[in-house]
Amino acid sequence: MSASALSSPEPHARPPLASLVDDLFAVRRQTLALASHLGPEDQAVQANEDASPTKWHLAHTTWFFETFVLQPFVPAYRIFDERFNFCFNSYYDHQGPRQPRALRGLLTRPTAPEVLAYRAYVDEQLHTLFASARSEDSDLLRTVEIGVNHEEQHQELLLTDILALFAQNPLRPAYRESAKPSVRQDLDDMVFLSFEGGLRFAGHEGHGFAFDNESPQHQTFLRPFKLSNRLVANGEWMEFMADGGYLTPTLWLADGWAKVTKEGWRAPLYWEQNQNHWEEMTLWGLQTIDPAAPVAHVSYYEADAFARWAGKRLPTEFEWEAAAEGVAVAGNMLEHDALRPLPAGPRGALRQMFGDAWQWTQSAYSPYPGYRPQPGAIGEYNGKFMCSQQVLRGSSCVTPKRHARKTYRNFFYPHQRWQFSGLRLADEA
Amino acid sequence: MSASALSSPEPHARPPLASLVDDLFAVRRQTLALASHLGPEDQAVQANEDASPTKWHLAHTTWFFETFVLQPFVPAYRIFDERFNFCFNSYYDHQGPRQPRALRGLLTRPTAPEVLAYRAYVDEQLHTLFASARSEDSDLLRTVEIGVNHEEQHQELLLTDILALFAQNPLRPAYRESAKPSVRQDLDDMVFLSFEGGLRFAGHEGHGFAFDNESPQHQTFLRPFKLSNRLVANGEWMEFMADGGYLTPTLWLADGWAKVTKEGWRAPLYWEQNQNHWEEMTLWGLQTIDPAAPVAHVSYYEADAFARWAGKRLPTEFEWEAAAEGVAVAGNMLEHDALRPLPAGPRGALRQMFGDAWQWTQSAYSPYPGYRPQPGAIGEYNGKFMCSQQVLRGSSCVTPKRHARKTYRNFFYPHQRWQFSGLRLADEA
Amino acid sequence: MSASALSSPEPHARPPLASLVDDLFAVRRQTLALASHLGPEDQAVQANEDASPTKWHLAHTTWFFETFVLQPFVPAYRIFDERFNFCFNSYYDHQGPRQPRALRGLLTRPTAPEVLAYRAYVDEQLHTLFASARSEDSDLLRTVEIGVNHEEQHQELLLTDILALFAQNPLRPAYRESAKPSVRQDLDDMVFLSFEGGLRFAGHEGHGFAFDNESPQHQTFLRPFKLSNRLVANGEWMEFMADGGYLTPTLWLADGWAKVTKEGWRAPLYWEQNQNHWEEMTLWGLQTIDPAAPVAHVSYYEADAFARWAGKRLPTEFEWEAAAEGVAVAGNMLEHDALRPLPAGPRGALRQMFGDAWQWTQSAYSPYPGYRPQPGAIGEYNGKFMCSQQVLRGSSCVTPKRHARKTYRNFFYPHQRWQFSGLRLADEA
Amino acid sequence: MSASALSSPEPHARPPLASLVDDLFAVRRQTLALASHLGPEDQAVQANEDASPTKWHLAHTTWFFETFVLQPFVPAYRIFDERFNFCFNSYYDHQGPRQPRALRGLLTRPTAPEVLAYRAYVDEQLHTLFASARSEDSDLLRTVEIGVNHEEQHQELLLTDILALFAQNPLRPAYRESAKPSVRQDLDDMVFLSFEGGLRFAGHEGHGFAFDNESPQHQTFLRPFKLSNRLVANGEWMEFMADGGYLTPTLWLADGWAKVTKEGWRAPLYWEQNQNHWEEMTLWGLQTIDPAAPVAHVSYYEADAFARWAGKRLPTEFEWEAAAEGVAVAGNMLEHDALRPLPAGPRGALRQMFGDAWQWTQSAYSPYPGYRPQPGAIGEYNGKFMCSQQVLRGSSCVTPKRHARKTYRNFFYPHQRWQFSGLRLADEA
Repeated sequence: MSASALSSPEPHARPPLASLVDDLFAVRRQTLALASHLGPEDQAVQANEDASPTKWHLAHTTWFFETFVLQPFVPAYRIFDERFNFCFNSYYDHQGPRQPRALRGLLTRPTAPEVLAYRAYVDEQLHTLFASARSEDSDLLRTVEIGVNHEEQHQELLLTDILALFAQNPLRPAYRESAKPSVRQDLDDMVFLSFEGGLRFAGHEGHGFAFDNESPQHQTFLRPFKLSNRLVANGEWMEFMADGGYLTPTLWLADGWAKVTKEGWRAPLYWEQNQNHWEEMTLWGLQTIDPAAPVAHVSYYEADAFARWAGKRLPTEFEWEAAAEGVAVAGNMLEHDALRPLPAGPRGALRQMFGDAWQWTQSAYSPYPGYRPQPGAIGEYNGKFMCSQQVLRGSSCVTPKRHARKTYRNFFYPHQRWQFSGLRLADEA
Repeated sequence: MSASALSSPEPHARPPLASLVDDLFAVRRQTLALASHLGPEDQAVQANEDASPTKWHLAHTTWFFETFVLQPFVPAYRIFDERFNFCFNSYYDHQGPRQPRALRGLLTRPTAPEVLAYRAYVDEQLHTLFASARSEDSDLLRTVEIGVNHEEQHQELLLTDILALFAQNPLRPAYRESAKPSVRQDLDDMVFLSFEGGLRFAGHEGHGFAFDNESPQHQTFLRPFKLSNRLVANGEWMEFMADGGYLTPTLWLADGWAKVTKEGWRAPLYWEQNQNHWEEMTLWGLQTIDPAAPVAHVSYYEADAFARWAGKRLPTEFEWEAAAEGVAVAGNMLEHDALRPLPAGPRGALRQMFGDAWQWTQSAYSPYPGYRPQPGAIGEYNGKFMCSQQVLRGSSCVTPKRHARKTYRNFFYPHQRWQFSGLRLADEA
Repeated sequence: MSASALSSPEPHARPPLASLVDDLFAVRRQTLALASHLGPEDQAVQANEDASPTKWHLAHTTWFFETFVLQPFVPAYRIFDERFNFCFNSYYDHQGPRQPRALRGLLTRPTAPEVLAYRAYVDEQLHTLFASARSEDSDLLRTVEIGVNHEEQHQELLLTDILALFAQNPLRPAYRESAKPSVRQDLDDMVFLSFEGGLRFAGHEGHGFAFDNESPQHQTFLRPFKLSNRLVANGEWMEFMADGGYLTPTLWLADGWAKVTKEGWRAPLYWEQNQNHWEEMTLWGLQTIDPAAPVAHVSYYEADAFARWAGKRLPTEFEWEAAAEGVAVAGNMLEHDALRPLPAGPRGALRQMFGDAWQWTQSAYSPYPGYRPQPGAIGEYNGKFMCSQQVLRGSSCVTPKRHARKTYRNFFYPHQRWQFSGLRLADEA
Repeated sequence: MSASALSSPEPHARPPLASLVDDLFAVRRQTLALASHLGPEDQAVQANEDASPTKWHLAHTTWFFETFVLQPFVPAYRIFDERFNFCFNSYYDHQGPRQPRALRGLLTRPTAPEVLAYRAYVDEQLHTLFASARSEDSDLLRTVEIGVNHEEQHQELLLTDILALFAQNPLRPAYRESAKPSVRQDLDDMVFLSFEGGLRFAGHEGHGFAFDNESPQHQTFLRPFKLSNRLVANGEWMEFMADGGYLTPTLWLADGWAKVTKEGWRAPLYWEQNQNHWEEMTLWGLQTIDPAAPVAHVSYYEADAFARWAGKRLPTEFEWEAAAEGVAVAGNMLEHDALRPLPAGPRGALRQMFGDAWQWTQSAYSPYPGYRPQPGAIGEYNGKFMCSQQVLRGSSCVTPKRHARKTYRNFFYPHQRWQFSGLRLADEA
């Protein structure tokens, strides 16, 4: 989702002010809690050009509230440090020039304590603001709501980025220690469930928050289709590997094969073979791979090649959304604290629609019919990323539960692998 | 379209054998006629990694018939030169290893005369084959039909690739000499025409040839929309430039702005400013830009930014196809021999749907619902390019007229500019 | 010098054991003192591929003593952490695989306190070793002496690398605060002093430590020559800039001009123009440029172009060494704590031969006649860097005074600018 | 030598005018004869960024005479085509902007016949000029002499560049057909010959032409040394390979090992292993490797690693020149028409000092003491390449015999391999 905060363009029934303020400070505390497992060096370094340092996440989410809430809504607001706009603006051209994305890791100053002070100052100012805010100020409420959702996105990124950092450290450090040994489960057979076609509504409307890329709600025509009842598991991925999946060009998209060849891909991103068995780097350090757990950290190219190898295909985002109708938003998400994908629960119908791993779809990330960018900086990114990326649906083991919903559209480039990205298979009816 | 020949998966009423054979040799002669304006050096050199040398086009299209028609359908066929499979296979992994795409220009051998001998040999063998072929051999007929369409694609590429070569030559050579001075026309106002929405069929079915990416025909739901009555013209593009279009990041997709910045784009690909007026490199050499003619050689990024600047958007491929319903397949195409986009004809309703310049759509190039790749080499490319590219509709001033149709899906990467790629605007109803 | 510790191949009169041990622990303390101005984040991040993080310097110099002194000379030595050999080996192929140079900044673990513990452990073990060491163990003494000199090199690199880091931080932090305002001096005229030619000895022999690239001492034939009496100053560099020095290809080496064009060089590395006056980033933060101070942070290409512009040339390393005969090893070096080049002192003969800024010579870094690499890891780098680099002579404002001597050969690639590298002019007699 | 024509700065006894004119037109004819084996496509394409197309060599050498002889010395000279200065200027900044070096292969126009017409025109104008020229016009004579030597350089480059082109063609074409099978000879033992040291003169002075980088003659002090009596042979190189030479980092310069790793070097440039025996691409097509012939197409890095493996070193250029004293300039050069290195002749003292393969020296390409660039374009390149390259001595199997002499300094970057570059070993006395 590239940390984009897309505003909700349509009015919806918003939570009462008190509830929103509770959410706000809960989210703010939670981000700090996630960072608390890390030392100042861990928080400063940038794992790669796609990732950002923890400290940058802490400061950028704060800058977001300072820039879009405090500055517009607090008349005499005093900016904490004028120079931080350059340091912590992510990609808002309306907000002026900024530290190049690839060089965020050079910002050893401001230091971690200085960033914490920045957070404290902004939180205090927000408290003051809300002490006198009125529930009817819908612009304020809407912006705060976006800010909360924006920070939730960065919580997920903070964790995926730290994993990317630690996976490149020869000491293979653990973000969290002493994982309980997982109880191994058998991998149950994958079953394909049938869904009806027809003219269906897709996209967000009405209650609850959504980013604007989920709107407008619109009709889309679906043919009948099938979906697998759970995510593709590590054990199945190993079969793909054993069958020469990474060595057979005819299984791959042309761009995908070029990438496989150039990068020498032979397994998912964090897998490594040690003394004849496979391990994967996780937030708990290097762990034996559980064959029953969903595969993660695969690119769209890999997901697509696997589906072709299996004689299936990936679902479209609209098939996924239609299938999610009536499914509870529940699963192995951030609050579960597993911090890694887990085997699907007791056998039943459609499992793992939320949690564990994001699910690549074959839908390119495009604007919905009638979509129009918002004016100003908040809306700047609306259309800005709608090209060359693929939509992922569901959520992952590090997504805050509040953040998941059935209309949510996550998006990444087809070669990217550092997110908890997996797949579910689809087929014709 | 990256020269991909996608097979037609569904049976359709095919032309009688005699007619197909006529088409075949007409196409074969036409390719030679296009090359006849070029010397051996012009034919050998590769303009850039996207383009191929003329000689390679001549040989590759011949290899296509040798590999997919003569070898399977002529029992004792003797291959002209075993080594040519390596030289002239484009991207068919089923057919084995090949000269890297970016190094096609190193093939000074075989020489141009040797490639002509190769063409003559294969043509003669095709003549012999057809002397005894039976009309009922539908596999043969289908493959020949693909070969004909495949070679038509390469005719267009041959011309766009030569333009790319000559545009980089400091002498700015003309592919064809003595262009008649065009009669300047005034640029008429752009008018937006309204189209109804609803559930519409899209894609190919029934009569006539189509590539398999145009199938299956399927239903898609459209909202009412508007389309401009002609293509965007050079004069309008100059306004975009004068208004800082290339200098304003908020008009651009994020990827597009990164490209503009990195490459220093300030105008369409072949435009150059000489003594305060703009000229463009064409197949007739360097020519003054006609403000009434459609803009061409712009990337998707530029087309999208222009549309945003104009307060409009690009159409989807399905809107375009719905609007094309009932429009005659006619316009400034290869046979017209203008070899450059021309101003729209007499004012009327929907003009320039075919000819002049391909029209970028906001649709990503994805498989149609129910699309399945064909088995074997002919079908290898079916899904292979369906990622990260955008669909273009219509046809251009260098597309053979036979090749254009309303279901045709051309596709290129959003940064590519060396094709005759322009745009038409769309809007909400 | 790329942190290479080249062993002294010939026996020389070594300091008594007690004195060497004093030096050792003084150097060890001094490195810690240099790092003490920096927080853990500053110590962890890598400024660029040429530079290393402070923490890495702290650990690598410790690894050097552990690997080359403690392991060979302490029979039951227990390694602090087996994994550190991978982390902190710089480029010794004899010592096995290692963290890629460009990725040293990813080592957020071990943390700064862990590295300090590593240093303390190794220092303690060294104390224990020396408590029982015998002065006659020349292998031990020689290796310790190399280790001391090696760590001195890294002290200089630590400072140049921090400057590179802070110069890229938008806050432009200072390594040290509250620089006293420098007393501006007038720039005295540059005078050229004459030196005789003839057969001269060059290179180290006899007393005192030297790296093995300074040996064997050998004869070299010099023509009479002239040297400028001081380093080229910032004010003179500004004249070069004002005269179009960076815009005139005929002043430059071909490789240099290619670099100027590609990188857009217009001034020395750390110069920036703010509101019409030039400032430079220093270890004291952003400071106004002193026209009388020596220019630093210029590449060989720039130094060579300047000399050509001035109608002069750079000296050879042998001319420099001949001129240094009898000159005291004194000047603005690390112990002076200026941490930046200063204007030349009272007018006299040959000034600034040591301190302020390293002096590019026109001599390529090649082996001296009869030079032979040492066996084993310590000698591995002996010939390893003797290609494509240029010799610099003298020392800089951040070189420990003990480290400077007239036979010292520093070396960098001709495009590198992050060291305190300046120039002195030469001419024919 | 990068085709640089370095002017001879000192007067020397020049050949009489008639003789020089004979040389001139003999050289001009010889270049055409070399090109006559190639078709127009072979002549147009550029093998890589270091190489130039044959047609470009034909035109550039002609441009050289037009620019530096006809324009200055023929008052009313009419330029053949004003645009050719852009096309065929190599790197003379004094002569203005030019086609980028890496894009010389895009110049399909002017065509080969047009370039021949250009040559004919310039030759005719030169004839006219010389019909009335006076022998005393030393500026004219000197410039013509440079032009002749310049064109000889390009004859060698024309052949090395064609070999580079054909070696990348999957058909492995031969520049010349029907090589006589070479008579295999046994490889005689390598013997090291001793040479005295002392103060020696090096560089050109007096009779005959030399480029200005060979001047001034100057004294240099040598230690006694040994040289191998012949070049290192392919059979010896195979031993190096079999002994893991390309797999052992400790044998290599650091830059060399980085290159080996990055490029996957495992053998000299044109070697390929086919069914368990080694072949090499030559101007006669793919040929079995002769173990007794000198190795060629190795980089400086490889030559240096081989010498280290053998327990020897490469000679300095001054050792080589001292050893060449009194050796006849004779050997397997262009006129011998072998076009590939041949085994050393009958056993004797110092063999293969000229011909077969250029000999890498450990001397960096630096200016001689007192060297000063010439004014104007002819002298522009004088110092321009004196950085980061290594000197090669001797000559090769494709060097015109007139072009070889004992003071000749050829130079290439240490990673370059497409020249006929081999090695001779040296050792301490």
